[in-house]
Amino acid sequence: MSIFKTVGPIHYEGSQSDNPLAFKHYNPDETVGDRKMKDHLRFAVAYWHTFTGDGSDPFGRGTMRRPWDRYSGMDLAKKRVEAAFEFFEKLGVPFFCFHDRDIAPEGDTLRETNRNLDEIVDMIQSFMKTTGVRLLWNTAQLFHHPRYVHGAATAGNADVFAYAAAQVKKGLETAKELGGENYVFWGGREGYDTLLNTDMALELDNLARFYHMAVDYAKEIGFDGQLLIEPKPQEPTKHQYDYDVANTHAFLQKYDLLDHFKINIEANHATLAGHEFQHELRYARIHDLLGSVDANQGDTLVGWDTDEFPTNLYSTTLAMYEILKMGGFRSGGLNFDAKVRRGSFEPEDLFYAHIAGMDSFARGLKVAYRLIEDRVLDRFMEEKYNSFTQGIGRDIRSGQTDLKELEAYILDKKEIQSRSGRQEYLHSVLNQYLLNV
Amino acid sequence: MSIFKTVGPIHYEGSQSDNPLAFKHYNPDETVGDRKMKDHLRFAVAYWHTFTGDGSDPFGRGTMRRPWDRYSGMDLAKKRVEAAFEFFEKLGVPFFCFHDRDIAPEGDTLRETNRNLDEIVDMIQSFMKTTGVRLLWNTAQLFHHPRYVHGAATAGNADVFAYAAAQVKKGLETAKELGGENYVFWGGREGYDTLLNTDMALELDNLARFYHMAVDYAKEIGFDGQLLIEPKPQEPTKHQYDYDVANTHAFLQKYDLLDHFKINIEANHATLAGHEFQHELRYARIHDLLGSVDANQGDTLVGWDTDEFPTNLYSTTLAMYEILKMGGFRSGGLNFDAKVRRGSFEPEDLFYAHIAGMDSFARGLKVAYRLIEDRVLDRFMEEKYNSFTQGIGRDIRSGQTDLKELEAYILDKKEIQSRSGRQEYLHSVLNQYLLNV
Amino acid sequence: MSIFKTVGPIHYEGSQSDNPLAFKHYNPDETVGDRKMKDHLRFAVAYWHTFTGDGSDPFGRGTMRRPWDRYSGMDLAKKRVEAAFEFFEKLGVPFFCFHDRDIAPEGDTLRETNRNLDEIVDMIQSFMKTTGVRLLWNTAQLFHHPRYVHGAATAGNADVFAYAAAQVKKGLETAKELGGENYVFWGGREGYDTLLNTDMALELDNLARFYHMAVDYAKEIGFDGQLLIEPKPQEPTKHQYDYDVANTHAFLQKYDLLDHFKINIEANHATLAGHEFQHELRYARIHDLLGSVDANQGDTLVGWDTDEFPTNLYSTTLAMYEILKMGGFRSGGLNFDAKVRRGSFEPEDLFYAHIAGMDSFARGLKVAYRLIEDRVLDRFMEEKYNSFTQGIGRDIRSGQTDLKELEAYILDKKEIQSRSGRQEYLHSVLNQYLLNV
Amino acid sequence: MSIFKTVGPIHYEGSQSDNPLAFKHYNPDETVGDRKMKDHLRFAVAYWHTFTGDGSDPFGRGTMRRPWDRYSGMDLAKKRVEAAFEFFEKLGVPFFCFHDRDIAPEGDTLRETNRNLDEIVDMIQSFMKTTGVRLLWNTAQLFHHPRYVHGAATAGNADVFAYAAAQVKKGLETAKELGGENYVFWGGREGYDTLLNTDMALELDNLARFYHMAVDYAKEIGFDGQLLIEPKPQEPTKHQYDYDVANTHAFLQKYDLLDHFKINIEANHATLAGHEFQHELRYARIHDLLGSVDANQGDTLVGWDTDEFPTNLYSTTLAMYEILKMGGFRSGGLNFDAKVRRGSFEPEDLFYAHIAGMDSFARGLKVAYRLIEDRVLDRFMEEKYNSFTQGIGRDIRSGQTDLKELEAYILDKKEIQSRSGRQEYLHSVLNQYLLNV
Repeated sequence: MSIFKTVGPIHYEGSQSDNPLAFKHYNPDETVGDRKMKDHLRFAVAYWHTFTGDGSDPFGRGTMRRPWDRYSGMDLAKKRVEAAFEFFEKLGVPFFCFHDRDIAPEGDTLRETNRNLDEIVDMIQSFMKTTGVRLLWNTAQLFHHPRYVHGAATAGNADVFAYAAAQVKKGLETAKELGGENYVFWGGREGYDTLLNTDMALELDNLARFYHMAVDYAKEIGFDGQLLIEPKPQEPTKHQYDYDVANTHAFLQKYDLLDHFKINIEANHATLAGHEFQHELRYARIHDLLGSVDANQGDTLVGWDTDEFPTNLYSTTLAMYEILKMGGFRSGGLNFDAKVRRGSFEPEDLFYAHIAGMDSFARGLKVAYRLIEDRVLDRFMEEKYNSFTQGIGRDIRSGQTDLKELEAYILDKKEIQSRSGRQEYLHSVLNQYLLNV
Repeated sequence: MSIFKTVGPIHYEGSQSDNPLAFKHYNPDETVGDRKMKDHLRFAVAYWHTFTGDGSDPFGRGTMRRPWDRYSGMDLAKKRVEAAFEFFEKLGVPFFCFHDRDIAPEGDTLRETNRNLDEIVDMIQSFMKTTGVRLLWNTAQLFHHPRYVHGAATAGNADVFAYAAAQVKKGLETAKELGGENYVFWGGREGYDTLLNTDMALELDNLARFYHMAVDYAKEIGFDGQLLIEPKPQEPTKHQYDYDVANTHAFLQKYDLLDHFKINIEANHATLAGHEFQHELRYARIHDLLGSVDANQGDTLVGWDTDEFPTNLYSTTLAMYEILKMGGFRSGGLNFDAKVRRGSFEPEDLFYAHIAGMDSFARGLKVAYRLIEDRVLDRFMEEKYNSFTQGIGRDIRSGQTDLKELEAYILDKKEIQSRSGRQEYLHSVLNQYLLNV
Repeated sequence: MSIFKTVGPIHYEGSQSDNPLAFKHYNPDETVGDRKMKDHLRFAVAYWHTFTGDGSDPFGRGTMRRPWDRYSGMDLAKKRVEAAFEFFEKLGVPFFCFHDRDIAPEGDTLRETNRNLDEIVDMIQSFMKTTGVRLLWNTAQLFHHPRYVHGAATAGNADVFAYAAAQVKKGLETAKELGGENYVFWGGREGYDTLLNTDMALELDNLARFYHMAVDYAKEIGFDGQLLIEPKPQEPTKHQYDYDVANTHAFLQKYDLLDHFKINIEANHATLAGHEFQHELRYARIHDLLGSVDANQGDTLVGWDTDEFPTNLYSTTLAMYEILKMGGFRSGGLNFDAKVRRGSFEPEDLFYAHIAGMDSFARGLKVAYRLIEDRVLDRFMEEKYNSFTQGIGRDIRSGQTDLKELEAYILDKKEIQSRSGRQEYLHSVLNQYLLNV
Repeated sequence: MSIFKTVGPIHYEGSQSDNPLAFKHYNPDETVGDRKMKDHLRFAVAYWHTFTGDGSDPFGRGTMRRPWDRYSGMDLAKKRVEAAFEFFEKLGVPFFCFHDRDIAPEGDTLRETNRNLDEIVDMIQSFMKTTGVRLLWNTAQLFHHPRYVHGAATAGNADVFAYAAAQVKKGLETAKELGGENYVFWGGREGYDTLLNTDMALELDNLARFYHMAVDYAKEIGFDGQLLIEPKPQEPTKHQYDYDVANTHAFLQKYDLLDHFKINIEANHATLAGHEFQHELRYARIHDLLGSVDANQGDTLVGWDTDEFPTNLYSTTLAMYEILKMGGFRSGGLNFDAKVRRGSFEPEDLFYAHIAGMDSFARGLKVAYRLIEDRVLDRFMEEKYNSFTQGIGRDIRSGQTDLKELEAYILDKKEIQSRSGRQEYLHSVLNQYLLNV
């Protein structure tokens, strides 16, 4: 029996359609380059925002009107599973993602909580089989309960560390059981509000210990999905330890974890950290750290995480540019870590929002693919960096020169000619591709 | 013959003095803990802001009225040296810092430029001998000339790389000649304005090659001062590669440069990157990366580098807290990378500004020292992290446990008790120390 | 029977005390200039943060441990009233502030809700009589319930406007009944998330209609307290209509409301809008708009309203400077619209936090008073603007000149001499006063 | 003889053209609704960025390579005029804008400066006649010379006020002479760096006096162009008085200047103030304050005015939406207050950049026109605000109700139903229009 009664399966109708419940650009089986759109994009629905989120914010309680509103406890958890898989199928997304606490309620002890979880995981597994929808990743929610007030792996209290460790153990087991392609760590409250009461050195060491235990346990149980860390600069704490991709890169290197982790990059976290989304993707890509993407967008004129559905075509195009340049996702995908606005409280808005995001990334994929095929930017760069393919430039790249030789080379030169960076022209070209593809 | 005719040597007169040309807190020979104030603080004057800066900004030309305004060319360069050493002596600072282009004008070729430089360096050396003022660090200015429009070590043009390399070669030689205690790299335009025309991978590789050449040459000539990198998140480029301390830490690790560099942390660069000044110092300290400090302050309500003289006592106190916790500076010091406001255009303002900064750090030193001696924060932290010194917590720290054991430990626990973080109380205590020391 | 069992009345013990439960600077009956400290500062406790706030944030549920946690419904509401007045008395604050929904729970209809409210208001009134604690202001909470999802007076739905209007009617009656010295309007969700669905013109007109109705009703029932509007730039909405003081000033003028309202300025809202707290106070003061103050502080490195207790002495000093320059508060006061950090979850933290804020403002008052008495800044400004007291400057001020005369005056002048702004020196002086008072 | 030798006249070649020196969307004589594209858009070139700007920034000197580089003094000024009109004609823009000091150098006295100005103005006038290019607006540059270090109309020194007044007098005469359609005031340094040395009340009064003198003089000489104020929140000063449109609106009302001024809104200034460009346009439009537009864009991830050429199609579409809703420009237009990046230093980049901007606004015009014609947003809003056209809602709008009646109306209502705001859906629709028009 249908839960989202007013909405049927969403189909591709092409760019001229004005049916709000149809795709205009996302055509899952259309081939772009070496694979189908659906295999490029690997969309996932985020369970928390779409099935657990209620629209509350710091200034008001929930607004969302949901078909499962009259249920509670385990009944509610089960109704949400039914709704979720109906939603996945109607939308035609191949993946979903969840935190442990999104899908099942806590009990009085962790043992009870795990029992609740097991029951729901079994139900999910059965739905996965019948629908073919897969788990992109799951994670442990280590920030909502008051026990995590001072962090989880970086809490001042060893019991809290133990509790978090036990949640991650269960999470890895769940990932293994459900065939998750990745397992994510987002540092909920791993950070600080004031350095006056914070031993940063100990906390970072503990965080590394925590990750190492997870690596060991994943190996022990034979979970071979990709482990991912998701950076965020601030919120809820004033300063999160996994501030951005580079900061996480420093941490992974220092603690000898580089072989075990890649990064899950969220667009809104990038901009909160002062970086373009593309910057974080580029940095991760060239350091072989780009694992998966939380596909949303922020509002750069406000200072908190708005987790909006991604509709900015510049952003989706440049994100897909980096992903295609990487050779496409391996285990990762595009997870809509995005929530409908508090004022978009009707169930239909969940469909409109996902359609908006999927179409925006599909269009971005096509534009990016064309930019790459036409070698527009590549040709520009080849000319720009041409001097490094010959003469002194080649020697620099190959490490066959030194300061003395370089000084001798340049000491009496009167003028150096460089090329214009042509930024305005390149922006024009980007617009051309955006509109014409 | 005096250049700053209206100002004599600045003396310590104590906190009750209302003489604007006296120190109220900086008493160079007063002992604080294990050393004298002057040896804790190791103040340096920044040649560029104080002797070369003219007060111009993007909306207006220079406003500064300086005794050397009527000179030009090498005469101007020489007059500035005289002025500088008179200023250092009157102020009683033990150190200064400079870029190559601050002290001598460019010629038509680098050979000519180096000749100009040599002449001034000789003059400086002679002044150093007679005054006892020392060189905290020098650096190469790799951003002002149009040749550096697209960066220096990360430029698209190999000739530009060569030119920059030659400048650094000369810089290291100068450092050696003048007995500089450090040599600094600030990535002027090492970054990008748009990724559309930027090969970030090549540019970062080149930057690392550049640093390795410098390390090799320093070794070759026997310069044993500390090499320092100074991070900045943006400005002049939209995105600088050495974004913050953690980003630089990632870079140094990746390119096997960690043994050769420490960080020069600027307060205003920290806040532009979204971090507290103390955060950057703390991160650097616990990773053994804290080399030296550019002592200034920014305006967190504006989005550009204001390079104000540091007068915020909270900031100076917490900075000195980290420096004392490190055991004090080794080769580093507090360099006033700060400029008088464009509206503070009289020569006297240079004295007022440095006095303001020196007194603020002197007070900060005394407050921080007292906080540490009284173990105020240390005691708080010992209690907070107490659980990691025993039982399961100790096992976590010593690596003697794993997820399974931790799960067994916590699985049936009903409640976990943590302590209050007491942030408001700690802020009260900080105010008490600030006012009462 | 005591509710806060571990804390007795808080007394002044002087600046050298290290008793965390004593005032170091706030000495209520000490005279500063023309009145007692308590009459300068007119402190108020904010009922919502201190008695209703539970420490929840967008990433986690409540953490606060409160003596009234085991109660619910009207019992909880009553227990909070008891706790509140015990707290007011132990702290020795003369005022409190509340939203209607902080003090009593909603019923099924507004009629029921008002009955709940009446019962609690009666109880409060009786406590006010026995304790002498007074109401600085009350307000209607028009943002928490889902009906206000699109705003209250600016909602798209006339029924919502009506509901909000009815709440304000009751609020004004309550203010009258309890002798409130002011009544506040904070535009909770009066703003927008996207202009794509917003008729800004209609919404602003409606907001003005709403205020006019309130003015009329206040007059009708004889409420002669001051009406106040509290600006905020954003959060919860992307853009709030009462963005800052100047924006509110524009609105009041346009809609002929200037005679009826003054502004309630919150420090954290000022900085979120890109202004110094002092800027908003100054703007309001010189336009005779400064009514009252929400005394808190934000973190300028994060982008949301943190509502921290005010402990920054620079901020409290410069705030008190403006308030003293205004001649002190008339109906307004310093309301601690501040919440203990989520990690400061013990009841004692409520005392520590208020003591921290009260001491910081008391110190600020003393420093500001001394700065004014010594005419430090006034003398500086008299010199700076001296040219406007004579000659052409006087003519400009008195309106007795025009462009032609001014051109004739200046046409052949060769040089214009201005004075240094001496910003660095003035910062030194501010530090001197801060430390020495 | 041609100055821009490598570039001929720019023609419209349609959206599929890949000629970098052709328009893809701007087709001047194409009719959109009631007028031609060129009459909707009324493009202007900004003389300062394009003919005077040299690419210098706070960290480096000029980089621009210009055909007039070898000239100086009045010869340079004249060569720039020739170049400018050749550029205007090749580009096909109908308007230009300038500051007095862009077009002619200063002399030793204002009298001499005015003589220089007169000579160039005569030359410009003659070019205007032969080319048909018109003056959108001119303005006085009151911030670059050191005399304006503390502001112009708000300086502490009456002589500075007089000098500025004389410049404005000349500016108004020039506007009259050249048939300027508007005259602009941008408050260069009208603001403050610290309130410690600022008498804000006097400075604002003086600013109003200054404007009143200008109004009077414009009337006296019969200049009937529109006077415009251009807000900016900060930079160069920490806080500019004309912070944003609302702030300026407050000022104009207070000082009885509302009848005489409209606003010139710059996109980059809007975002620096924390507002969307569209917000400022909307606010101005509904208050009948929208005069003209400085068409550029900023980078919301950096904190200074980048003055980039406008290429973001979302921004240009929503800007044109407001302008069309206003009924189109009267005296105003779209002035490219934008500069090519420092790295885009070749003369061709000036063409690429303007083409990029003109095409982006042309496309925005077409998309916005279609959105309005199809009543997409209008229909949505009619439904959203429908309740205000009948019953209690109509009474609210017509002022025929009060708090008592509204309370009676709502007191026993059990539920209020509102509509979803459909933000995600509306973003989809916007994308559809953007791509399909």
